[in-house]
Amino acid sequence: MALSASLLTHLICSTYQHHYSPHEPQRFCPHCNAPLIACYDLETARNHLDRDQFAHRPRGLWRWHELLPITDPRFQITLGEGDTPTLSLPHLGDHLGLSHLFLKDEALNPTGTFKARGQAVALSKLRELGLKKVLVPTAGNAGGAMAAYAARAGMAARVIMPSDTPRANVEEARIAGAEVILIAGLISDAAQAAASMVEQGWFDVSTFKEPYRLEGKKTMGFEIAQAFGWRFPEVIVYPAGGGIGLVGIWKAYQELKILGWLEDDTPPRLVAVQAQGCAPFVRAFQAHADHCDFWQKAQTIASGLRVPKSFGDRLVLEALYDSQGIAIAVSDDEIRNAQKLLASSEGIFAAPEGAATVAALFHLKEQRFLNSKERVLLLNTGSGIKYLT
Amino acid sequence: MALSASLLTHLICSTYQHHYSPHEPQRFCPHCNAPLIACYDLETARNHLDRDQFAHRPRGLWRWHELLPITDPRFQITLGEGDTPTLSLPHLGDHLGLSHLFLKDEALNPTGTFKARGQAVALSKLRELGLKKVLVPTAGNAGGAMAAYAARAGMAARVIMPSDTPRANVEEARIAGAEVILIAGLISDAAQAAASMVEQGWFDVSTFKEPYRLEGKKTMGFEIAQAFGWRFPEVIVYPAGGGIGLVGIWKAYQELKILGWLEDDTPPRLVAVQAQGCAPFVRAFQAHADHCDFWQKAQTIASGLRVPKSFGDRLVLEALYDSQGIAIAVSDDEIRNAQKLLASSEGIFAAPEGAATVAALFHLKEQRFLNSKERVLLLNTGSGIKYLT
Repeated sequence: MALSASLLTHLICSTYQHHYSPHEPQRFCPHCNAPLIACYDLETARNHLDRDQFAHRPRGLWRWHELLPITDPRFQITLGEGDTPTLSLPHLGDHLGLSHLFLKDEALNPTGTFKARGQAVALSKLRELGLKKVLVPTAGNAGGAMAAYAARAGMAARVIMPSDTPRANVEEARIAGAEVILIAGLISDAAQAAASMVEQGWFDVSTFKEPYRLEGKKTMGFEIAQAFGWRFPEVIVYPAGGGIGLVGIWKAYQELKILGWLEDDTPPRLVAVQAQGCAPFVRAFQAHADHCDFWQKAQTIASGLRVPKSFGDRLVLEALYDSQGIAIAVSDDEIRNAQKLLASSEGIFAAPEGAATVAALFHLKEQRFLNSKERVLLLNTGSGIKYLT
Repeated sequence: MALSASLLTHLICSTYQHHYSPHEPQRFCPHCNAPLIACYDLETARNHLDRDQFAHRPRGLWRWHELLPITDPRFQITLGEGDTPTLSLPHLGDHLGLSHLFLKDEALNPTGTFKARGQAVALSKLRELGLKKVLVPTAGNAGGAMAAYAARAGMAARVIMPSDTPRANVEEARIAGAEVILIAGLISDAAQAAASMVEQGWFDVSTFKEPYRLEGKKTMGFEIAQAFGWRFPEVIVYPAGGGIGLVGIWKAYQELKILGWLEDDTPPRLVAVQAQGCAPFVRAFQAHADHCDFWQKAQTIASGLRVPKSFGDRLVLEALYDSQGIAIAVSDDEIRNAQKLLASSEGIFAAPEGAATVAALFHLKEQRFLNSKERVLLLNTGSGIKYLT
C-alpha cells in the first residue's frame, strides 16, 4: 500500500488531552497553557512500514516523512539538516573510564546547530498552512536557523534576541534577510516583546509554543536508534535550555516502541545538563516537582542554556522521571575546561552547551549514575565557532 | 571476492611518471618538483565493485574506502566528514535564468569547511605509516581542520598561518592542541617558514606537497556523480585557491569513467573562480599557459583564495583545459553582494570563497559560457560564520 507523505492525525494537549486539528495553524492549548503534541497513525505505520527501508532513503531528516507532519512533500524545505554523525570517543572514554562513550555531533547541521531540525520542520508545516510571517524570541541559535529556513521558504522573518547574544547569531539572521530586534534582558524578555507582535500577524515559533519544532527534534531520536542498531544507548546526556531536544528524543523512543522497531525496549536514561547559573530543571528535579520555577538572574557562558523557565518544563521533567534519568548542573569553569578537553582529545570543538555534557560526565561518574561498560551518548548541539564572536 | 580495504597500488609523479611506493611517507617528486598522484587497481575495482553498493554503506567519505589510500581500516580516522548535501537553488536560479542550479554545501563538514576531507584522508594515511608530527602552512581553514584531525589521530600538530587569518582559524587550531605560529605575510611566506621545520621531523601536509589530501578531495567528485544519477552536471563552479578540490573532482571523473560507472561520459566543464586581487589561474588561463606565475601583492577578503601560486598549478590548468572549462575573477564587492544574495534568497550563509561562485555566475551568463537549461553546480567550500571573527 502506498502511504501518504505523513501519517499525522491530530494534535493533543499535553496536559488534558484536548484535541486540535493539524489542518490549521495551532500554537499551544489555550485552556491549559500547555504545549501541543503531534499524533500519528502508528497502527498503519506499524503494519506498512519497515524500519530497514529508512536506511536506504536519501540522507536527511525527511527520510522519516511518514512520521513528520508535512502532508504534501512539495512543502518540505531543506538545507541538508539531519543525519549527523555518531562518533565514538576512545581517548576521552579512556580518560574517564568509560568503554563505550559516543557523541552525536549536531554541529554538522545547516547554521551549525541542532536548531536547524526544528526550524526545518516547523517552517515547512507553516508554509503548507499558508503562513508568510514568522518570528522567534531566541537565545541565539534558533533565530539564526529560523532566519535561514524562512529565506529558503520565502517567508518574512523577525528575530528577537538579548543584546548580548553572540554576534554570529545576529549576523547570520541579518544576512538571511531577517529583521533582528535586540533587547535588554534574557530570552524571557524577548518572549514578552514577541507577544505583542503576534497580534500583528506574526506567527510565533518559540520552543514548545507551537507543536512542530518538537517533531523536527524527534528525528535525533530516530537517528540515534538506527545508529545503535535499534537499541537505545543506556544513557543519553543532553544540554537542556528549553529542553525540547530531550523531549523529542523521548517522543522518538515512545513512537519506536509502539512501532515495534526496537530490538530492546529498555529506555535510555536521560540526563539534562544545565549551567549552575541557570538550573531550573535541576532545582525542580531535586524537589521532585512537576514544573519549574522561574530562575532569577540567569547567567552562563552557554547562551543556549540561559533559559529561566521553559514553556515545556512539565514535559522535560516527565521525561527525566519516566526514563530514570537525572538533572545536573555544571559551572562555567567546568564547561570551559571540558571544551578544551574534548577538542584536544578528540578534535571536536563543541559549543559550550555541548561541552557541558562532557563536564557532566565527571559528576555522573562520581555519583555512580554511570556504569563504565554502558553505552553513553553525548549530544553536542552546535559548533564552538559560533561563540567566538 | 572480498577486496582489501584499499586498492591503492602506487604513486606516480604528475610530470614524468616516476613511480613511488605508497608504503612509506612520500611528499612530491624530487626530480620534477611536482605533485604525486595515487593510483589504484581500477581493473579489479571494475570487475568486483558495483557502484550501487556505495549508496547502502554508512554515511561519510570512508564509504569509498577501496578507492582511498588506507590499507588497514583501523587507521581510518573520522569526525563525520563527507556526504554533504546537494541543494537545488530555485530562487537564485529564477533570478539568474538558470533552471537547474545546485549547490553542494561543504560547510556541513567537521570544522565547517571542505578542508576536513583532505585532512581526514592524509592524516589517516600518515598515521598508518607511523608518523607522529604534522605541520601545515595555511591560509586558515586547512590548519583548523588539520589540528582537529591530528587531535583525533593522537598526533602533534603545528599550524603556520598569516597573522591576519580569521581568528576562528587560530582559535579552532589552538583549542585542538595545535601549536599555532602566526607570521607576517601570506601563505607563501608560511610555506617558507614550514620548510625549515620539515628538517626537524615535522611532516608537511601542504596542498599538493603530499599525495593524499587530493584523495580526500576526490570524494567530492564521487558524491557529485552519485547525487546526479552518475551523470556529472554540465558545469561545476569551484573557488580555486590552491585548486586541489578542482583537481580532485577531475580525478574522480577520470576514475569513474575507467570504472564504467558513469551513465554518460561527458565531462563536466570546470570553472575556477578567483578573486581579482589574486588571480594567478585566470592570468595563466587567458595566456593559455601550462603553469602560473607568482601573483604579487595578493589581496582579497576571501582568505582561502589568497594563494599567490599553487604547487599544483599545472594540474589545475590541465583540468580546466581538458574539461573545456574556464577561469574567471570576481571582485571583493561582487563577493560581498553575492554572499548576501545567496543568504537572503536561499538561506545559505556561505564563506566568501563559496559566494565567489555565485558572483561568477553573472559573468558566466554574460560570456554565454552557460546555457540556461544546463545543470550547474556551485561548490560552497565553507561556512560564512568562520569569517565573522
